Amino acid sequence: MKPTTLKDIAHELNISVATVSKALKGYSDVSSSTKKAVLKMAKKMNYIPNTVAVNLRTQQTKTLGVIIPAIVHHFFSEVMDGIIKEAKKHGYLVITLQSNENYQLEKKQLILLQQKRVDGILISLSNDTPNFDHINAILQKKIPIVMFDKIAKLVECSKVVIDDKLAAYNAVSYLIEKGYKRIAHFRGSLNPQISIDRFLGYRKALVDHGIPFDPKLVYICDNNDDFNDGYNNAKKMLEEHNDIDAVFTITDVVAVGILKYLKENDIKIPEDIALFGFSNWFMSSVITPSLSSVTQPGFKMGKKSTKILIEEIKCINKGIPYSFQTCVLPTSLVIRNSS
Amino acid sequence: MKPTTLKDIAHELNISVATVSKALKGYSDVSSSTKKAVLKMAKKMNYIPNTVAVNLRTQQTKTLGVIIPAIVHHFFSEVMDGIIKEAKKHGYLVITLQSNENYQLEKKQLILLQQKRVDGILISLSNDTPNFDHINAILQKKIPIVMFDKIAKLVECSKVVIDDKLAAYNAVSYLIEKGYKRIAHFRGSLNPQISIDRFLGYRKALVDHGIPFDPKLVYICDNNDDFNDGYNNAKKMLEEHNDIDAVFTITDVVAVGILKYLKENDIKIPEDIALFGFSNWFMSSVITPSLSSVTQPGFKMGKKSTKILIEEIKCINKGIPYSFQTCVLPTSLVIRNSS
Repeated sequence: MKPTTLKDIAHELNISVATVSKALKGYSDVSSSTKKAVLKMAKKMNYIPNTVAVNLRTQQTKTLGVIIPAIVHHFFSEVMDGIIKEAKKHGYLVITLQSNENYQLEKKQLILLQQKRVDGILISLSNDTPNFDHINAILQKKIPIVMFDKIAKLVECSKVVIDDKLAAYNAVSYLIEKGYKRIAHFRGSLNPQISIDRFLGYRKALVDHGIPFDPKLVYICDNNDDFNDGYNNAKKMLEEHNDIDAVFTITDVVAVGILKYLKENDIKIPEDIALFGFSNWFMSSVITPSLSSVTQPGFKMGKKSTKILIEEIKCINKGIPYSFQTCVLPTSLVIRNSS
Repeated sequence: MKPTTLKDIAHELNISVATVSKALKGYSDVSSSTKKAVLKMAKKMNYIPNTVAVNLRTQQTKTLGVIIPAIVHHFFSEVMDGIIKEAKKHGYLVITLQSNENYQLEKKQLILLQQKRVDGILISLSNDTPNFDHINAILQKKIPIVMFDKIAKLVECSKVVIDDKLAAYNAVSYLIEKGYKRIAHFRGSLNPQISIDRFLGYRKALVDHGIPFDPKLVYICDNNDDFNDGYNNAKKMLEEHNDIDAVFTITDVVAVGILKYLKENDIKIPEDIALFGFSNWFMSSVITPSLSSVTQPGFKMGKKSTKILIEEIKCINKGIPYSFQTCVLPTSLVIRNSS
């Protein structure tokens, strides 16, 4: 069955297509009796407006594009939840793409979203994105972009982040104040800003508390959120050092990997080694021992990014100038049994 | 900066828009030197084809719509991962909507996707969807739909599922063969087919092994995947019954809720009470004791559903008839320390 068209309705009522179109849009030069007849017939024939055609006229698609590194990750699925819900509130649909932490794919996906004429783009960068020309190229075309979580400080656009450096600083300072002295850091890969900032926060906390920074105590977890990275590096760390008394990790999932290795080797948490994670994943409260962590407000980040993006789209449509915002969402420490 | 149009290219080269359009499409009635010149200019001017306009011609949007109950759920985020990756392979984009287990919202979202002229729809029903007229209305318009996981058996369309009843039967039979006799079931809400089928598998396993079915041992977890449902019902169950020796649950997250309550009350797992979950969430191997579970292939389910949908879209476009398929993906039991 083909969808009902304006022509079908016009044919049934024996009036012109233009009159049907005007009646459906509520124009004042169509009599109210004609309007009623058209609406009744449209309903009867199950007419649905062709929004693709509408788009051509208004130049709007009411669609937002999102590029995230991966959807199977509790934090990003929370962000997506926030994005989809906020978009819905404003009548926007969301196209979701995954870069799989791959720069080439991220570049292609930006072009694809542009071809799809999305009204705006939300992006969290892949780990191996080395430069930002692809982002700037889109911004130059007056397509608004809001970056969240994994952002590029140098790109001029709105951003929604947490203060990763401060959050890490607070977590490591807490460990030091509890009396831990040889604190290792399981960091993310070298490139992403969040990984750099969390590392810098760790190092600053040590130095500010008079503990010398030892680069040998920093282990790299290339996948950021990989349980196995935590597990394998824990093994390596214990072979190389017998004096570690605490570990601060880039994510909770990495910490859970360490936790598993320590338990298998009868190392007591937090008596022998304390653990402090990042992101306050809901499982962190359930595992034994429960994991201390930094809260990372994924849902709020998704909502806020989308809100800013839609405001920018509105400004562009109305020709009103606007300024880029950087919104820093608050975090806090959740202290549980692992520290 | 406005996007480059065919008119801009035509103007630069002082040729007609029709010639530019033909050249870009590689039509044979345009000379190869003109083609070269057009392609070079299109590249120089950073021309990107307007796919919204292309859509009007081909009547295709190369977009799929997905409606899922919730994205913040490990199983559904795995399904989404499979959907997005398979869609990408075939050049399709994915619009994701969340029904939040709400029937009214699900109805609206189906109409919205139809208005957006998606080429096909993937849906997993909400828990409170009482009838399927909204699904049938879309199918009647020749828009293909593939249902997955939470399906309606009565709707005539392709489906991708697991055999929930058999999987539950196998899990409960395993518990019985291990010697457990008073086995409770923490089921999902009354409406969804998966919840009904897992319950029926539980009951059949008891009856087939000569254990009387006791409806008082069945507790309802309305949210299916809610940790708190498991925790609170565990409390209730232990107040009402002191002879339960095992619990089979609708999902792993419910089982983890029970596990927390049992541990807080010094009830040993599996010595006092064994636990068996459903979905083999990756955390199930990490918690203490590790949780026995039924594997539920989310990623494969997403890929397979998308593959079938794209095949159906192709058939519709070519006017080739096709039959609906029901694909049952295999599951297996993963036995760990909780049973």
